[in-house]
Amino acid sequence: MKIAIAQLNPTIGDIPANADRILTIATECLRNDVQLLLTPELSLCGYPPRDLLLKPEFIDNMWTNLEYLATSFPEGVTGLIGFAERNPEAAAKGEKPLYNSMALIQDNEIKQIFRKRLLPTYDVFDEARYFQPGNSPNHFTLDGIHIGVTICEDLWNDEEFWGKRAYEVNPIADLAALNVDFTVNLSASPYTMGKQKIREQMLQHLATRFNQPIIYVNQVGANDDLIFDGGSCVVNKDGMLCDRLPQMQEYSRGVVWENQTFTSVAAPAVLLDESAELYAALVLGVKDYARKCGFKQALLGLSGGIDSALVATIAADALGAENVLGILMPSPYSSDHSITDAVALAQNLGIKTQTVPIEPMMKSFDSSLAEMFADTEFGVAEENLQSRIRGTLLMGIANKFNYLLITTGNKSEMAVGYCTLYGDMNGGLAAIADVPKTKIFALCKWLNRATEIIPTNIITKPPSAELKPGQVDQDSLPEYDILDDILERFVQKHESPKQIIDAGHDDAIVTKVLRLVKIAEFKRRQAAPGLKVTDLAFGTGWRMPIAQRWS
Amino acid sequence: MKIAIAQLNPTIGDIPANADRILTIATECLRNDVQLLLTPELSLCGYPPRDLLLKPEFIDNMWTNLEYLATSFPEGVTGLIGFAERNPEAAAKGEKPLYNSMALIQDNEIKQIFRKRLLPTYDVFDEARYFQPGNSPNHFTLDGIHIGVTICEDLWNDEEFWGKRAYEVNPIADLAALNVDFTVNLSASPYTMGKQKIREQMLQHLATRFNQPIIYVNQVGANDDLIFDGGSCVVNKDGMLCDRLPQMQEYSRGVVWENQTFTSVAAPAVLLDESAELYAALVLGVKDYARKCGFKQALLGLSGGIDSALVATIAADALGAENVLGILMPSPYSSDHSITDAVALAQNLGIKTQTVPIEPMMKSFDSSLAEMFADTEFGVAEENLQSRIRGTLLMGIANKFNYLLITTGNKSEMAVGYCTLYGDMNGGLAAIADVPKTKIFALCKWLNRATEIIPTNIITKPPSAELKPGQVDQDSLPEYDILDDILERFVQKHESPKQIIDAGHDDAIVTKVLRLVKIAEFKRRQAAPGLKVTDLAFGTGWRMPIAQRWS
Repeated sequence: MKIAIAQLNPTIGDIPANADRILTIATECLRNDVQLLLTPELSLCGYPPRDLLLKPEFIDNMWTNLEYLATSFPEGVTGLIGFAERNPEAAAKGEKPLYNSMALIQDNEIKQIFRKRLLPTYDVFDEARYFQPGNSPNHFTLDGIHIGVTICEDLWNDEEFWGKRAYEVNPIADLAALNVDFTVNLSASPYTMGKQKIREQMLQHLATRFNQPIIYVNQVGANDDLIFDGGSCVVNKDGMLCDRLPQMQEYSRGVVWENQTFTSVAAPAVLLDESAELYAALVLGVKDYARKCGFKQALLGLSGGIDSALVATIAADALGAENVLGILMPSPYSSDHSITDAVALAQNLGIKTQTVPIEPMMKSFDSSLAEMFADTEFGVAEENLQSRIRGTLLMGIANKFNYLLITTGNKSEMAVGYCTLYGDMNGGLAAIADVPKTKIFALCKWLNRATEIIPTNIITKPPSAELKPGQVDQDSLPEYDILDDILERFVQKHESPKQIIDAGHDDAIVTKVLRLVKIAEFKRRQAAPGLKVTDLAFGTGWRMPIAQRWS
Repeated sequence: MKIAIAQLNPTIGDIPANADRILTIATECLRNDVQLLLTPELSLCGYPPRDLLLKPEFIDNMWTNLEYLATSFPEGVTGLIGFAERNPEAAAKGEKPLYNSMALIQDNEIKQIFRKRLLPTYDVFDEARYFQPGNSPNHFTLDGIHIGVTICEDLWNDEEFWGKRAYEVNPIADLAALNVDFTVNLSASPYTMGKQKIREQMLQHLATRFNQPIIYVNQVGANDDLIFDGGSCVVNKDGMLCDRLPQMQEYSRGVVWENQTFTSVAAPAVLLDESAELYAALVLGVKDYARKCGFKQALLGLSGGIDSALVATIAADALGAENVLGILMPSPYSSDHSITDAVALAQNLGIKTQTVPIEPMMKSFDSSLAEMFADTEFGVAEENLQSRIRGTLLMGIANKFNYLLITTGNKSEMAVGYCTLYGDMNGGLAAIADVPKTKIFALCKWLNRATEIIPTNIITKPPSAELKPGQVDQDSLPEYDILDDILERFVQKHESPKQIIDAGHDDAIVTKVLRLVKIAEFKRRQAAPGLKVTDLAFGTGWRMPIAQRWS
């Protein structure tokens, strides 16, 4: 039997278009003698649909399109299609209104429905908000082959692999007890750095532990802050990886099931190395946000610094250099290299630039505020004014020409609030908001591995916001390798101040950094969506109160 | 037996201070012969603690303070204290890491622990993210009296009252079967308009249906976007309301249990009428956000319009007129009345004002952008520039003098995006972001019921953003009563476009409004926290994708 993996990039809520895309692939399946077509979790609406799930007509529309697919699928091709299913017994039994389901369509009918059993509620996931968990193992038989069905999280609860359980049941154990021939896992699993390796290790562990080959099908493409990385793969019961689809691109292909073993029809895609993977994820994130929101062109402020240099490079790869505009906005405090470095970068990338000096606006704000600010010293208020003038210029240009403004802040500065709300934080998408500064240096060095794309001076000069004469970041912050380690321990690992100090960090620095993280919460709450690439991003998975006094 | 209701206003995460406040009240209890002290849900850490619950030392600290309370409580006073309890079996059983619990402290010990059974996951609630539900009825005996314990949502699942069930079990039915003498409900139930009436009707229904008196204890005070309105009350088994604590203020008092009936020690507080209640809620929201974030003073832009007039009035009541600064920022497009009305308002309120005309900044931006904007027409980009100049001025003043900037947008304009991101949306708190425009008119008329606080011309003139000559809101939007009805149907009731049109609205207007709501999502994502006063606010309870194509 030939089985096709459709690693799809749906647009959230574009149900008819998503259905048509599935149908197109089903038609190809017929030509290639494929009998079973696998699509990702919630493939009809895209993942995550979030509160669109609360709209009754959204659920109705999915059902209508599912029926359309059932009757339109070519004869001989069976499909597994992801959709949100209304729970008819919700009100009577006091259950959640929906199931996160997969429909088996075959012979012009919806033959069977499989319901996700394990519903994640950690990090960015809110599945208990919408869904009732399924309460029995999911499986079916096709041409005498007994196939287990799991949906994403259903496979992520093996106490042997994780050292603990996160849910009461382990669906693959139930399927093993039913003697399925193999199990499919239909997922929408968001990218984080290094996650694909862990996924494959987990799949290999499960395949050998439960003596079951597994086909893992992942969504690809970015939806707001989440990047889905694809990397669908097939593991045989000896734990050997038999096939892997490319990461970060829509892709479909078949795999052959024969003699209780999967065989690939082509060489497995090579796993991207760490920097290549991260960079490709960020490019996909920018590309899909722009495309799915209807933007063809983007702009950003080019300060001559490393953050905007990296984002300009990502934007040029995502949208084409001809669609990216860099705006240089020097002030009297700007260094000469801020201009020369930015221009050199733009030339390397082939992007357009415009220069708008901000001194005229600085002067008009200063004189308008002179009476109120009399007898005060130059400080953060004046620094922020410069940043907000730049942010206002960028938004003015974006509004005028319908460009997407991409904001360039990194995770380290978002963490400690070393950024200006309504200034450099302005933008529709924060491309590198979840990338720590130390990783930004690493990515830029990687980009320069063959030829110089990021001018060397941008990488080697001391980072500076250039909001007052001679300013550098390290006037206010610890060295970035120290800052990033403290932040990783505090934000991602939930370590206590004592644990961080015990790990070798200076008491006073830790206290200062953690205080900064806390008081910057109000800025992060108003930040643009940032592409998530770590286990814990400041976004939908970070839900901190602002008015609080925990210390 | 005398029982005290402590309607507390905790600060999120300030565990030692919250514990000390409880201890102070317990000491008063001893003086007043009170035997049982009731506190709200999660009274030790305040509700909602959100992701602070993911920090292990936060949970440890709660336990330490609970033990401190147990050993410090005066002899003879029993207390019910809310805290997040670690679930010791979480990893082994695959359960959630915590319980949302109440501890019974008595005789220097933690005698019993009661676990919340029904965990809300709708709207602003994320309890399944943190908590495992308790699985048995909660009750205890004190001086021979058998008392049932429920925590907030535990009482909100009566299928007779609601016409459906939202959870599988109904905890009060279990308690009735155990023949408790009465039940306590320890809550942190956020305010929405008219909710207190529904709560009391529900309590009265439950008391008569299950033949059980009920003491309902609610948290009071605002935490970020949520306002908790207090209004704790006591219902006898005949359904008669025997006591009610004041709404919107911290308050404690006792109630007497004798002959299977509660008797109040003072007259029940009078229920506020609709406008008084809404206004008091908004004042509390501003007051607590400022206080809990450490601000003593606030500023806002005074446009001469009704929104900023209402917010100035709220701010003056919340912080004292002497602590509120209104900034007038006229442009060449401003009408004369924009100044005279704003000045008249400020005089009525007794707040300070400063005037900063924006024309100099408009000119400097215009000339700096002249080359790029050549051959384009005056449009939204130029309108937004004015708004962003004002937003930048306000933030400059706020930064310089450490004032809280309160933003003045209403729900109707937030819904359709009739507001400028990084402009008039700037601010730490959005005081009336969940109040529809029609309600704003009603509130201002109510404020003027005795004397003129809001100058009449502000209420009667046509609303205008004054961003171009002669502009009024209704150039771009339908009349506000039509707009607000469409929005309420679409946003709060999840009605489909067809249902809204069938209700009598014009097809073209509905289509336009719903399109505006969708494309404004990116603005709302970056909005300041807005005080929630309706069943569905654009805030933590509104989780819509941005890059989506559902229509």
